[in-house]
Amino acid sequence: MIFLDNASTTKIKPEAISEIERSHALFYNPSALSGKSLEVRKEIDAAKQKICKALGVDYNNNLIITGSATEADNLAIFGSAKKTGDQFVFGAGEHQAVFASANELKLRGFNVVFAPLNKFGEVDLDKLKEILLKPTAFVSIMHVSNETGAINDISKISRLVKSFWPNAIFHSDGVQAFGKIPTNVLKLGVDLYSISGHKVGAPKGIGALYVKNISKLKPIIYGGGQEFGLRSGTENTEYILAFSKVASNFEIEKSYNHAKKLSNIVRAYFEGKDGIKINSSTAASPYILSLSFEGVRGETLVHVLEEKGVVVGTGSACSSKKTTNRTLEAIGLCQKQIEGAIRISFSNENGEEEVLKACEIIEEGYRTLLEKLR
Amino acid sequence: MIFLDNASTTKIKPEAISEIERSHALFYNPSALSGKSLEVRKEIDAAKQKICKALGVDYNNNLIITGSATEADNLAIFGSAKKTGDQFVFGAGEHQAVFASANELKLRGFNVVFAPLNKFGEVDLDKLKEILLKPTAFVSIMHVSNETGAINDISKISRLVKSFWPNAIFHSDGVQAFGKIPTNVLKLGVDLYSISGHKVGAPKGIGALYVKNISKLKPIIYGGGQEFGLRSGTENTEYILAFSKVASNFEIEKSYNHAKKLSNIVRAYFEGKDGIKINSSTAASPYILSLSFEGVRGETLVHVLEEKGVVVGTGSACSSKKTTNRTLEAIGLCQKQIEGAIRISFSNENGEEEVLKACEIIEEGYRTLLEKLR
Repeated sequence: MIFLDNASTTKIKPEAISEIERSHALFYNPSALSGKSLEVRKEIDAAKQKICKALGVDYNNNLIITGSATEADNLAIFGSAKKTGDQFVFGAGEHQAVFASANELKLRGFNVVFAPLNKFGEVDLDKLKEILLKPTAFVSIMHVSNETGAINDISKISRLVKSFWPNAIFHSDGVQAFGKIPTNVLKLGVDLYSISGHKVGAPKGIGALYVKNISKLKPIIYGGGQEFGLRSGTENTEYILAFSKVASNFEIEKSYNHAKKLSNIVRAYFEGKDGIKINSSTAASPYILSLSFEGVRGETLVHVLEEKGVVVGTGSACSSKKTTNRTLEAIGLCQKQIEGAIRISFSNENGEEEVLKACEIIEEGYRTLLEKLR
Repeated sequence: MIFLDNASTTKIKPEAISEIERSHALFYNPSALSGKSLEVRKEIDAAKQKICKALGVDYNNNLIITGSATEADNLAIFGSAKKTGDQFVFGAGEHQAVFASANELKLRGFNVVFAPLNKFGEVDLDKLKEILLKPTAFVSIMHVSNETGAINDISKISRLVKSFWPNAIFHSDGVQAFGKIPTNVLKLGVDLYSISGHKVGAPKGIGALYVKNISKLKPIIYGGGQEFGLRSGTENTEYILAFSKVASNFEIEKSYNHAKKLSNIVRAYFEGKDGIKINSSTAASPYILSLSFEGVRGETLVHVLEEKGVVVGTGSACSSKKTTNRTLEAIGLCQKQIEGAIRISFSNENGEEEVLKACEIIEEGYRTLLEKLR
């Protein structure tokens, strides 16, 4: 089985598994009074500190642990939502966690605006500037697109947003960036930054939100006051420690170079081939490649490929019901190309040989399928 | 170490650990398209079905998995909050997850009313009837008190609420009831019922909300549409399967009888002893016993006891900052008794001998501490 759907989720890493196993003994409630509880509390604090380090910050009180990156996005958005009439701006290609929250804000009477993408899948900065002429309360633009790998220049965008509206809150969904490209939140200039565990080899069921200024955010879950009052609920010790262990072991540059090699293999293989289009820009993150196979349906191709031992995606899997593909639409693909799109995404566990082999299987699967349909 | 703080959290059970270990291989995103993902989806559905069975219902589409019982309570409350002017009624002794949510509702302009407790720690039904004379949208009353073990007759209360206001939504926080006393949601007549994993030997970081009528609830977390659109975010396969395994192994009657024995040992030991008061009614759940030691502070006693190898609680640990104790106040304890309160709570792993030994250590610790303070 060649697994090339790592943007949907990753295999849990051995160091995460052993950290979970170790943590089972640390079962005391970290919010209880006992000395044993205090030991657990210290382990959690140290773990959060390490995740912070991977985000380029030293202290741990800026990190709110959540049950998923989706929850982190929701906390960022709804936690910042005050009805002043000023607009809330979102990238047109945001992940469903942000997009659905934006739509809910709209239903609640907020002034919600979407910033269009350019043909590379990045937020179009000229159009964003036009949008920013109007009073703006909040901007959310993802770091790396989960569909195409397009990288938004978050540092530039945050400066842009603040130059127009110094008090606007700037959030970025960093789920496909964390552990893959540099994510120093201070350099990025973000107020809020969402990350996920299961996209980097930690378990599903944990995410986090970096929060620059805790006093500006409101919780969406109320209760015992854990996570500085911003996310109540007994702490998931096992997963916090596992996530932290994985984040401490990141080797961004090495992994990036490896992903770049894999990505180049796929690009070189499919470049110029009949009926096949590479949708991702060469400037995109090498971890994600969107390709279109004209004349077939992406879902069908995915099933054909799985039978041949290759797992790829049709795009974001973090959605239980998908109808169309907003991102591919926004970058100007035609209906045929959208329908025939698949997503290949790498982890540093993928090898060059298996990726080349996958390319051959994908092409063969595509040609056979096309033949059948004719 | 004698661990008698099981109402704050429990040691994770071996069958939960092995289910987590087994699930690591089921890493595929259950919302992705592949056949492997479909296998994971089937495992999750089967697991949810088993949790449903422990709640007395057959089907699985009525159970929303959350990241904690706190989140389940929040989903129940905020997901039912429509501003019609009709009142939202809460028990005065609710867990902080419900109580803090109720206060937030109040801040948002909702009409929030608290129903007083009687001296046994149960919601006072006569006073509740008076409250219910006014138009009511929502009622939330916990099944078993996390402070005293007091059991509310949920089946009776749900009938009462519906007899006044057939369209009112009735929620119960069942965290301290699930796995300990019968929790057939159909017999209880609840619309919404919250449960927690880590109070029954499953891991921290998972809870669930039984939802009678899915169409009446709004999500608090938006995104990919998982959990019937009511709780977006990639599913935590490992913990869902672990929670399910624990819930399938419940032996309610056997465990209850065991807890009753342990509870009786403590009652018999402290009954009538000087300066010591048993706050829990004999009708309460035997899993939780609140006791007051006059002249000392509960927190201090807890620390003294831990040094002697006995872990007990001062009350709800699911709160990171505690000031007073609402429940003990509501049942009419004086300040001295509230200050000197500790909570003893059992799991079926506790033995009779260790509980008797703990009683001796507690009494000795109390007398010594009292001596020192004099």
